[in-house]
Amino acid sequence: MSLIVVGSMAFDAIETPFGRSDKIVGGAATYIAWSASNFTKPIQQISVVGGDFPQEELDMLVKRGVNLEGVQVKKDKKSFFWSGRYHMDMNTRDTLETQLNVLGEFEPVVPRSYQGADILMLGNLSPAVQLSVIDQMQKRPRLIVLDTMNFWMETALPDLETVLSKIDVLLVNDSEARQLSGQYSLVRAAKEIIKMGPKFLIIKKGEHGALLFHDDHVFFAPALPLEEVFDPTGAGDTFAGGFAGYLDNTKDFSFEGMKSAIIVGSAIASFCVEKFGTTRLKELSKNDIDERIQEFVDLVNFDISLVAG
Amino acid sequence: MSLIVVGSMAFDAIETPFGRSDKIVGGAATYIAWSASNFTKPIQQISVVGGDFPQEELDMLVKRGVNLEGVQVKKDKKSFFWSGRYHMDMNTRDTLETQLNVLGEFEPVVPRSYQGADILMLGNLSPAVQLSVIDQMQKRPRLIVLDTMNFWMETALPDLETVLSKIDVLLVNDSEARQLSGQYSLVRAAKEIIKMGPKFLIIKKGEHGALLFHDDHVFFAPALPLEEVFDPTGAGDTFAGGFAGYLDNTKDFSFEGMKSAIIVGSAIASFCVEKFGTTRLKELSKNDIDERIQEFVDLVNFDISLVAG
Repeated sequence: MSLIVVGSMAFDAIETPFGRSDKIVGGAATYIAWSASNFTKPIQQISVVGGDFPQEELDMLVKRGVNLEGVQVKKDKKSFFWSGRYHMDMNTRDTLETQLNVLGEFEPVVPRSYQGADILMLGNLSPAVQLSVIDQMQKRPRLIVLDTMNFWMETALPDLETVLSKIDVLLVNDSEARQLSGQYSLVRAAKEIIKMGPKFLIIKKGEHGALLFHDDHVFFAPALPLEEVFDPTGAGDTFAGGFAGYLDNTKDFSFEGMKSAIIVGSAIASFCVEKFGTTRLKELSKNDIDERIQEFVDLVNFDISLVAG
Repeated sequence: MSLIVVGSMAFDAIETPFGRSDKIVGGAATYIAWSASNFTKPIQQISVVGGDFPQEELDMLVKRGVNLEGVQVKKDKKSFFWSGRYHMDMNTRDTLETQLNVLGEFEPVVPRSYQGADILMLGNLSPAVQLSVIDQMQKRPRLIVLDTMNFWMETALPDLETVLSKIDVLLVNDSEARQLSGQYSLVRAAKEIIKMGPKFLIIKKGEHGALLFHDDHVFFAPALPLEEVFDPTGAGDTFAGGFAGYLDNTKDFSFEGMKSAIIVGSAIASFCVEKFGTTRLKELSKNDIDERIQEFVDLVNFDISLVAG
C-alpha cells in the first residue's frame, strides 16, 4: 500500500463565533496525513515548511507512519501562514491574512522511493505545482485525486484545465462546481465537469453532506448533524485524507468502493470540527472511528416496501 | 384507513427563472390530497373555496378518493390567491401579492362522518384555525401532523405554542426551526422544539433533504439531485401528503415507520417540482412512484466494512 500526499504544511490562526486559536499547526497535507494514516501506511508526504515548523509535529507524523523524505525544510525561511474568521453559519469565512512564505516558491520533488505509489492525493495548491508532481511520476498512479478551489479557477484556469484532464477524482464544493461548470444545477454541473477529465466528481456541501457523480450514477453521503461545529478548518482536507487513505487500504476504486470511502471521509471530518486544528484528529482511536461510521450507517438506513396504488 | 387533511385550496400565480404560470390551482390541502391519495383513501378534506374554484378540479379530487364534505364553498366570494417570484436558487422567493379572500374568515367544521380518523394532517394555516380542528375531534386521532411557517411564529406565537403542545409530528424548514428554537445548530433546535410538545420533528432543507428527530435518534433523508427544478411551489405540501398518506396506509407510527414515510414523501415531492402546480402529480402512475423510491434507495445505499487501525 502506498499513498502520496501533496499539499501545504503550515500555520493557521482561527477565529470563530465560539473562540479564537493561537497560531496553530495546519495545512492541507497535515490534515490529509493525520486522517489517511488511520487506514494506511506509509503515507509519502510532499510539502515544504520553514525553519519555524515545530520538530515535534514532524516527529508525531513520522510515528503515525508518515514518510517525510519529500518534505523540504527551508531553515532560514518561514512556513505558510493563514488567518481567518468564520461567520455564524460556519460555512463562510473571511481571510484576514495570508503569508505565502515558503509556499510561494514551492517546487515539489518526488523522491525516488515514492515512485510506484498506487494513489496520488493532490491537496489544494496551484495547478502548476500539482501538474509538476503528476509529470514526475514515472508510472501513472492507479488513482489521482485532486482538490482545488475557486481562487485557481479565477487566476489559473488554463493550468487547472490541464490538470483536470489528467486526474481520476475531483473534489470541490458546491459553489466551486457551479463556478467551474457555469451551471447552477449540480447535476448539470457534474456532467460538464466530468467532460473535463475526472471520471469521478465529489461535490462537498459542508453541513449538507456530499454528492458523488460517476457516469449516470449519483450517491449522496450525509453529514452527521452536529450539536456544535467548533472549528471547520481542515474539514475538507480531513475528508480527502479519509477518502484516499481508505481507498489505499481497500484498493477498490469502483463506484461502490468510492461510496464507502466517502462515508469514511465524512466520518473522520465530523471529528475534525469538534476542536481547533488537528487536536481532535490526534486523539482518535480505532473504536471512535468505527462507532462514528456506525452512526452514519444508522443515519441513512431505512427499509421500505413499495405500496403505491 | 382514514386521513383528515386541513388546509387551503387556492389559486397561485408563479414566476420562476424558467417561466411563469397563469393563475393555476394550488393550496396546501390540494397538494396534500393529490399526494396522499397515492397511498390511502378516503382522504377527508377540510377547506374553504370561493365560487371561482373550478368544479372540474373538485371532481378530479373526488375521483381520486377525496371526500369533500368538509370543504365549504362560498359561492359569492373568491378563493385565496397568492402570487410569487422565485430566485435563481429556487429556495427563496418573494411574495408579489396575497389575497386572503375566503381564507380570512375560515371557520373549519369537522363533519360527523370524519370523526374517528387515525391521522389528522394540519396544513399550514393560522394556529387558531388548526387548534379549532383539534378541539372538534371527539376522539384524539392516533397521529396529529402539523405544518406551519415563520409568519405564525412572528404573529401568533402563543397560539402556535398551544397547538405544538397537542401534536405528534411537526414539519418546518431549517430557518423556521432556528427561529422557533432560538438555536442555530439544528441538533440543539430539535431538542428545544421537542420540549414544546411534538414527539417527532421533521426539518425540511429543500434541495438538501430532510432530517427526522425523535428522542436521541436522527434520520437523514436526501433530496434527489435534480437536473432542473421547474417550480418548487407545493413541494413541501406534497412531501407532507406523501408522508401522511403512507403512514395512513402502513399504520406504523414508530421511528422506523416515519423514516420510510419521509422517503416516500421526498419521492413524491421530487415529481411535484418537475412542472407547474399540480400538473405532474396528476400524471403519476404506481410504477413511476415505485421507480422513484428505488432511486432514493440507490442514492443512499452503501456497504461498508470497518477497517480503521
